[in-house]
Amino acid sequence: MKLNIALLAGDGIGPEVIDQAVKVSNAVAKKFGHEINWTPALTGAAAIDAVGEPYPDETHEVCANADAVLFGAIGHPRFDNDPSAKVRPEQGLLKMRQKLGLFANVRPTFTFPSLIDKSPLKRERIEGTDLIILRELTGGVYFGERGRKDDGNTAFDTMTYQRFEIERLARKGFEMALKRSKKLCCVDKANVLESSRLWRETVQNMEKEYPEVEVSYEFVDAVAMRLVQWPKAYDVIITANLFGDILTDEASVISGSMGLMPSSSVGSKVSLYEPIHGSYPQAAGKNIANPLATVLSAAMLFEDLDLADEAEAIRAVVNKSLAEGVVTEDLAEGGKSFGTSEVGDWLASNL
Amino acid sequence: MKLNIALLAGDGIGPEVIDQAVKVSNAVAKKFGHEINWTPALTGAAAIDAVGEPYPDETHEVCANADAVLFGAIGHPRFDNDPSAKVRPEQGLLKMRQKLGLFANVRPTFTFPSLIDKSPLKRERIEGTDLIILRELTGGVYFGERGRKDDGNTAFDTMTYQRFEIERLARKGFEMALKRSKKLCCVDKANVLESSRLWRETVQNMEKEYPEVEVSYEFVDAVAMRLVQWPKAYDVIITANLFGDILTDEASVISGSMGLMPSSSVGSKVSLYEPIHGSYPQAAGKNIANPLATVLSAAMLFEDLDLADEAEAIRAVVNKSLAEGVVTEDLAEGGKSFGTSEVGDWLASNL
Ligand SMILES: CC(C)[C@H](C(=O)O)[C@@H](O)C(=O)O
Ligand SMILES: CC(C)[C@H](C(=O)O)[C@@H](O)C(=O)O
Repeated sequence: MKLNIALLAGDGIGPEVIDQAVKVSNAVAKKFGHEINWTPALTGAAAIDAVGEPYPDETHEVCANADAVLFGAIGHPRFDNDPSAKVRPEQGLLKMRQKLGLFANVRPTFTFPSLIDKSPLKRERIEGTDLIILRELTGGVYFGERGRKDDGNTAFDTMTYQRFEIERLARKGFEMALKRSKKLCCVDKANVLESSRLWRETVQNMEKEYPEVEVSYEFVDAVAMRLVQWPKAYDVIITANLFGDILTDEASVISGSMGLMPSSSVGSKVSLYEPIHGSYPQAAGKNIANPLATVLSAAMLFEDLDLADEAEAIRAVVNKSLAEGVVTEDLAEGGKSFGTSEVGDWLASNL
Repeated sequence: MKLNIALLAGDGIGPEVIDQAVKVSNAVAKKFGHEINWTPALTGAAAIDAVGEPYPDETHEVCANADAVLFGAIGHPRFDNDPSAKVRPEQGLLKMRQKLGLFANVRPTFTFPSLIDKSPLKRERIEGTDLIILRELTGGVYFGERGRKDDGNTAFDTMTYQRFEIERLARKGFEMALKRSKKLCCVDKANVLESSRLWRETVQNMEKEYPEVEVSYEFVDAVAMRLVQWPKAYDVIITANLFGDILTDEASVISGSMGLMPSSSVGSKVSLYEPIHGSYPQAAGKNIANPLATVLSAAMLFEDLDLADEAEAIRAVVNKSLAEGVVTEDLAEGGKSFGTSEVGDWLASNL
């Protein structure tokens, strides 16, 4: 197979972790007889510096024409300390999601047996956790009308959803649940919000198409609580953009291994794969960042392109590196640790 | 002192836990030479059944004319399973908050040394946690315009804030921080929402009035993560209605003792005090509910009426009951446990 992959390294540790995922992907491609054509393109602060725009049109062209996008991270502290900055890296992220139509953010949360004690949660609460949060990514309050009134003294944002947006996301949730434990939880705030009532109504109407799937409806505040109390209660969660933003970050703590958590953002034409850890600027350029989340994101990429064996090979070598202690310092528990690129090299040559 | 307190027992375990708080409050009043005049009034499902309205006008009159309101809980499963129910207990809650102008929900989160191992979080992560979340309670997306368009296929909710609403809440946060560790964290989503940018702007403008307070600004998704990772990082958090709804519930897990967590909802004229645990219908009528959160809410009531010694006396007797194992079954660890009313009696007579 010939694969065209757009490569957006982005900011902070992005370039370093992306390099390792490329190494590992190339090694997998070689092993299974594929050819990968990588096309790098600019995003984030790096793109602002180069062309004044966090998601330039040329980058969009590259992504739109690729089979998939592998993404590092976006964000730079320079912008965080300046809330009035006109152009911000995050705008690139939102523009990219919208222009590529990446409507579903898929965030698995699971535990690694050897790392379970790194979690702030007690072992018995999280052992065996295996859930997926499916966050709607191109609608809701992120993309509704917003502005000021009343001499700037009143600000508003509009949370809005159309039935087809909910249906599209929910359908993906039902399909995923079918392949897993057949449990779907729709998370909303239907006791207050009209948009949540439309979510509930839409999902309820779809239930009859998936009689095997057991559907539950929970309020976002209760889920924020239960996710920490008993994450094993959940299998597939579907939720709106803003709720998903909050709950996926909260869930990332469960495993205690944020450096290992991959994600995908699925579109109807092209999908994007990225680690959830962000640009982590303090570690940039030091060859200490953990590349595993990006490597596991590449595994999700292969899987979605129907290359399940390739994905499995990546996951297996990642597990092997953990078992043999070929890890970056965040996982080394004071023991011997390896650099970002050394871990990448080891993974590529042990596939 | 003569106190007029409105008594809203509400639904589920509400009446049972309220009874104990009344016993304890009366015992405190007797000890310190006060007189309490309790005026019961209907709310929630109980009020819907009696007069077809979850927050009747007569109830509002009672509350508006009281020195304080002591509240049990609202909500009944009968309504949860019927999302189309026209009149719902929750509407009473929202109407009450709005009509009484309860603009600030105050939710302390702290740990009890003897109960710390009940938390799903590891002891070293939470020991010494002592934070307060101040949630804006009468604005934001809870009270903005909402509805349907496009034949019911598009739903919208409006998240809106006025500068004075933010200022009023923030001022309370600054004042609280001054009396505590002098750290204030404003939690928002200013990288996306205009209303959050107004929050940030408003709080930034107030900083110079409180030079002693160290103010930080964090995004709600990051806080959802850090609250679980390291709650000790926080002292006073101020945030919008919806974010506060989610974060306060999440924070309630930290202590592992939700049955003990009190809250107040502060208005400019009258304030309301309630346990955070809700109506817990499964336990209603069984004399097993833990009354301590309601008793500790009464302590907050006394404190806010400048009766600090009275508040302290209540907290002391609660601690004594925990130390001596006079507890309901949720805290008994399989050992001897007491009924709701027995715990109330013990507290009242051991003051
Ligand atoms: C950076 C920010 C705009 C973004 C979001 O809120 O979606 C981020 O938090 C995320 O979850 O990818
Ligand atoms: C019942 C519901 C409307 C309410 C809210 O969202 O405010 C509740 O969750 C709370 O936090 O008191």
